[in-house]
Amino acid sequence: MFTVTVRGHMMIAHSFRGEVFGPAQRLHGATYIVDVEFRRRDLDIHGIVIDIGRATEVVNAVLGTLSFRNLDDEAAFAGQNTTTEVLARAVFDRLVAAIGRDELGDDGRAIETIKVTLHESHIASAAFEGWTQGEGRTQG
Amino acid sequence: MFTVTVRGHMMIAHSFRGEVFGPAQRLHGATYIVDVEFRRRDLDIHGIVIDIGRATEVVNAVLGTLSFRNLDDEAAFAGQNTTTEVLARAVFDRLVAAIGRDELGDDGRAIETIKVTLHESHIASAAFEGWTQGEGRTQG
Amino acid sequence: MFTVTVRGHMMIAHSFRGEVFGPAQRLHGATYIVDVEFRRRDLDIHGIVIDIGRATEVVNAVLGTLSFRNLDDEAAFAGQNTTTEVLARAVFDRLVAAIGRDELGDDGRAIETIKVTLHESHIASAAFEGWTQGEGRTQG
Amino acid sequence: MFTVTVRGHMMIAHSFRGEVFGPAQRLHGATYIVDVEFRRRDLDIHGIVIDIGRATEVVNAVLGTLSFRNLDDEAAFAGQNTTTEVLARAVFDRLVAAIGRDELGDDGRAIETIKVTLHESHIASAAFEGWTQGEGRTQG
Amino acid sequence: MFTVTVRGHMMIAHSFRGEVFGPAQRLHGATYIVDVEFRRRDLDIHGIVIDIGRATEVVNAVLGTLSFRNLDDEAAFAGQNTTTEVLARAVFDRLVAAIGRDELGDDGRAIETIKVTLHESHIASAAFEGWTQGEGRTQG
Amino acid sequence: MFTVTVRGHMMIAHSFRGEVFGPAQRLHGATYIVDVEFRRRDLDIHGIVIDIGRATEVVNAVLGTLSFRNLDDEAAFAGQNTTTEVLARAVFDRLVAAIGRDELGDDGRAIETIKVTLHESHIASAAFEGWTQGEGRTQG
Repeated sequence: MFTVTVRGHMMIAHSFRGEVFGPAQRLHGATYIVDVEFRRRDLDIHGIVIDIGRATEVVNAVLGTLSFRNLDDEAAFAGQNTTTEVLARAVFDRLVAAIGRDELGDDGRAIETIKVTLHESHIASAAFEGWTQGEGRTQG
Repeated sequence: MFTVTVRGHMMIAHSFRGEVFGPAQRLHGATYIVDVEFRRRDLDIHGIVIDIGRATEVVNAVLGTLSFRNLDDEAAFAGQNTTTEVLARAVFDRLVAAIGRDELGDDGRAIETIKVTLHESHIASAAFEGWTQGEGRTQG
Repeated sequence: MFTVTVRGHMMIAHSFRGEVFGPAQRLHGATYIVDVEFRRRDLDIHGIVIDIGRATEVVNAVLGTLSFRNLDDEAAFAGQNTTTEVLARAVFDRLVAAIGRDELGDDGRAIETIKVTLHESHIASAAFEGWTQGEGRTQG
Repeated sequence: MFTVTVRGHMMIAHSFRGEVFGPAQRLHGATYIVDVEFRRRDLDIHGIVIDIGRATEVVNAVLGTLSFRNLDDEAAFAGQNTTTEVLARAVFDRLVAAIGRDELGDDGRAIETIKVTLHESHIASAAFEGWTQGEGRTQG
Repeated sequence: MFTVTVRGHMMIAHSFRGEVFGPAQRLHGATYIVDVEFRRRDLDIHGIVIDIGRATEVVNAVLGTLSFRNLDDEAAFAGQNTTTEVLARAVFDRLVAAIGRDELGDDGRAIETIKVTLHESHIASAAFEGWTQGEGRTQG
Repeated sequence: MFTVTVRGHMMIAHSFRGEVFGPAQRLHGATYIVDVEFRRRDLDIHGIVIDIGRATEVVNAVLGTLSFRNLDDEAAFAGQNTTTEVLARAVFDRLVAAIGRDELGDDGRAIETIKVTLHESHIASAAFEGWTQGEGRTQG
């Protein structure tokens, strides 16, 4: 199995509902350092999983739909906590949609699984990993 | 699959038996930077794998049973080398026991696998990954 | 010159005033990984600059006065942007005040300069460095 | 499952063929920070996956066959781009060959899978992961 | 003293003349992770040393004049080794020139010293630090 | 001012005397990741501060005199705590002695200051910085 991983980041504000969150129930914020790992079984004829430059652009475009925002005001997250786990899944879903719109070309369509890791500090991170399509995807 | 990872550390002394270890047969020590990755298929109703604050407390409590000790004197490791691999497994076992004692609540019981990585320097690490329960666990 | 550096972090929301800030004029947030470097010429009789455990506690207490807050609502920052630079200075000032209240003991009073670095992402940071007391301090 | 990971690095020159590579079609170079992860189900009688010192030597020997070279001139890569992905696979293949020559001893022969990750910068990496032998290996 | 640091990178090929360099006399290459630290005594009216976004753009523009090239062919370095130290100085000089062309605005002209650090691997780096103007600059 | 920094590590056991140290009064240990920064005003004719390969060898030789030992048994530290600060100074002193024995050649004698940083974990480090010779050195 081959993988390519690219890194970006986003800076957001939000608050959480639920006593389990303690002081994080107050409006606060986070920088998320985001690692996106693309995986496929074989390389293309150029010897790559996916073009790193293009992958970086698409990842940054996805992060740009979330960054510099108060996520409490985003309709996409109405009624749910924008935890690190939920945001990892959201970035994954938006990348799968970008692949569906062919933004990553043929190489993008050849990707089998994607893992999105969000580092919220030097001591904590969360991730979501799933299939990009087909039956696999519904299994998460 | 969703994951949450928290980081802690411990500082221990020990020595190894076996010529393969060279100078590490002498009494020496290590700082282990410890990453614990908790994995489960679905999030709870709050949108989390496990509360990061609570997970950090439990991880630190487990590391506290090992840290600031000469492991050569610990009954739990009598007759075996406390290599980075063995310690990764020990931390894993103690976390599974903590889950069994309900220290991580319902979210803890929903965890399917745990990966414990111990970084012994900037150039070497070891890890143990296993199922938290059931048949899976016996397979390591 | 001897130094001891301890690391903590804080998670805050804020917005900036001024066109130079572009999208950061919107309410957003950040995780700041905070490195505090304490410097003095000589060690105390125990062979330390300052007790690392105690320094960590005081740094965390200072960061706790800022973390999990919307800094736009904090009176202490009324009328100014809470940029990374301004926050580095604020952490510095609060640490100097803590030393003045003897929270770091005799070792704290022996500290000559402190450097506070705030990492806002994997690609950007800001810092403030100054004298803890006397004439030196007024020079920043 | 137990793992041991060791880190090394190599510094090479090369160029790529294909418009997808943009300016990387020119002769340039890279430092690759290389993480090699060795995995097996059980530990040996010393409590290790593989001796970290010996593994580091073998990894460095493999990297030494690539480092400080212009890969455009290497017969082993004639007709293909030496992308980060291709080089990860090449390091994997050479490690499997070293195990085949018994350079990692009995522990080496007990390794089931190896993952080779090449970090080409602070924001991009690629990896190849495969079985060291048998049917598994042919599946990549 | 306030500082802002931004990170970029470049990927180059080169070779060295002199027996001291051993195998690095052959054509090889490097990724340099580049940290540029801008320092000044006071903040501007917005509360910043320099706009991080603009500084990143200028740093990337300077690195773009060196990246994806064989430095052995660059007239700017004729007759000298493009060691990590020499390249740190070259990046510094080009940043000072950019400030002279007002590419960093009034904030750029207020910068007193700049430190450019090039990380050539996880275990080695080099840096050049100097004054941006006046007598200080000639002292290096 | 030019600098070159090289990284190594050592793994030691020790205990501390003094209630301030809490549980660290027990025999325990540490991995120290060691960064040694060499500084001089001008480069040599090859364009370097010091040969990185040779500097790495000398740093590793110095660390080898401390690593894989119980520092409580070392005569060199009798009657003092081997804190991170004290060890940073010890590494500095041994490097200055190595320069005095010409182990770093003419470039070594041209070094003006050295900073030795010991990272004891991901959240704490200590350093000693001083002149390598003359009056400057006595001032620490």
